[in-house]
Amino acid sequence: MFFLIGDPSHLPAGTPVVEILAPEAAADAMGEGLPVLARDFGGPRVPGAAQPGHAPHVIDAIREAVALVQAGRAAALCTNPIHKKALKDGAGFAFPGHTEFLAHLAGVDDVAMMLACDALRVVPATIHIALEDVPKALTRERLETTIRITDAGLKAQGLARPRLAVAGLNPHAGEGGAMGRAEIEMIAPLLDDLRADGLEIAGPLPADTMFHPEARARYDVAICMYHDQALIPIKTLDFAHGVNVTLGLGFVRTSPDHGTAFDIAGTGKADPSSLIAALRMAREMAGR
Amino acid sequence: MFFLIGDPSHLPAGTPVVEILAPEAAADAMGEGLPVLARDFGGPRVPGAAQPGHAPHVIDAIREAVALVQAGRAAALCTNPIHKKALKDGAGFAFPGHTEFLAHLAGVDDVAMMLACDALRVVPATIHIALEDVPKALTRERLETTIRITDAGLKAQGLARPRLAVAGLNPHAGEGGAMGRAEIEMIAPLLDDLRADGLEIAGPLPADTMFHPEARARYDVAICMYHDQALIPIKTLDFAHGVNVTLGLGFVRTSPDHGTAFDIAGTGKADPSSLIAALRMAREMAGR
Repeated sequence: MFFLIGDPSHLPAGTPVVEILAPEAAADAMGEGLPVLARDFGGPRVPGAAQPGHAPHVIDAIREAVALVQAGRAAALCTNPIHKKALKDGAGFAFPGHTEFLAHLAGVDDVAMMLACDALRVVPATIHIALEDVPKALTRERLETTIRITDAGLKAQGLARPRLAVAGLNPHAGEGGAMGRAEIEMIAPLLDDLRADGLEIAGPLPADTMFHPEARARYDVAICMYHDQALIPIKTLDFAHGVNVTLGLGFVRTSPDHGTAFDIAGTGKADPSSLIAALRMAREMAGR
Repeated sequence: MFFLIGDPSHLPAGTPVVEILAPEAAADAMGEGLPVLARDFGGPRVPGAAQPGHAPHVIDAIREAVALVQAGRAAALCTNPIHKKALKDGAGFAFPGHTEFLAHLAGVDDVAMMLACDALRVVPATIHIALEDVPKALTRERLETTIRITDAGLKAQGLARPRLAVAGLNPHAGEGGAMGRAEIEMIAPLLDDLRADGLEIAGPLPADTMFHPEARARYDVAICMYHDQALIPIKTLDFAHGVNVTLGLGFVRTSPDHGTAFDIAGTGKADPSSLIAALRMAREMAGR
């Protein structure tokens, strides 16, 4: 059961809407239509065009959603994509993305991005940076933070002792130093320290042999060193149903794994699979 | 139909062997057993232990195989893994690997390594180097050579106009320069020049969205910038049946996508799937 915070006039014509005044009314409303905590965004929807005028209201809706989850009046937050430039132009939005804004609202410095589908969970330790910047961005502190947030996040989801698999940075995880030394100098010693601290960790493992079915059965989450190392396997295995999960916020947050797609807005071509999967995963995670 | 060049006494006990004196006798022998062009390796097999004493004979067998293929007396070469250190210790083998030795025998400077299974073909432009060395190793010359050898190699296999998909180096193929400039400064201009020269090329494409079934249907081969970008998707999709194909030699060469695995030699645990797939692919490629 879920409800939308937004302007009901922005929904497609014919959407069965039930305006509610409080989250607690959503359960009863659900049988008749989509429960909406209605907020006036100040102007009509224009599919495919950024509306900076709506920006303050979009930001307020996010703030309100976080406040409701933090107050225990909602069990989880599932966010839709935002248009960062419209928010910046219309309301001076100063965050690089949705996740950073949520971390700010949650009062935390570090979060981890997990991509999840039925077949696989992955967490990249570095994300949206050039490949040449990965080796220096991948500090011991960065990797340790990512691993600890991931471990705690899966524990919060009900896994008593998450099995973490950590990839190497280099081909064949460096092959004993023959193809890079990050594994010997940083990754392996860090993993040893974390094991001594009680975490269940395999690795550093050669990334190319981590993602076939037999390998995936040995762990609950794969921690990768950079964007494509994490996103290639999950998008290869399940392109449409990947869900973005933010770990470390202190509450459950999921989102579909795609952007605003203004190029197909209003055409009826959008595939709702990832949003549906994100709502389902939010329910599942919140239920634990 | 195939035959082995090697010492028949090194085959597992009970293998039905038919010793032949020339490749031309293999077809008739095949019905009764494994045709073997028998060569004395000078000592017994010791499963799981390197035998430097056999090294000159192993090297001779490779030379002989290449000579037979080049003379048209065999249609294709399928190689088994070699133990590089044993060859170095026993015969001063001076090549970093099997492929480099074959390139030397073929008299070519550059080859490309293709990994292939039913679902996907990939060619990495850089291979066994540390991730931090990839950006500088990935020169325009290196990438152009890889693409041209791949295009010519698939044409030699019977694809009249191979559809090549080229990955970007950075996340989201750099996203317009926001996460790296290799795509803007080198890859895209090179691909434009190659298109003008008649090649059919898509890219540079974001690597994470290149390998789901719908994306794979749009190309015949994916050219990747580094080891894990190429090997993660193919080993995720089909771990057991990947075949290594060397393009650019002037003859068909395949090999199983694994090493000597001395740790399980003689135990009966080895999985022959990749060797079987390599033999099948050699037959298929040679038939065209």
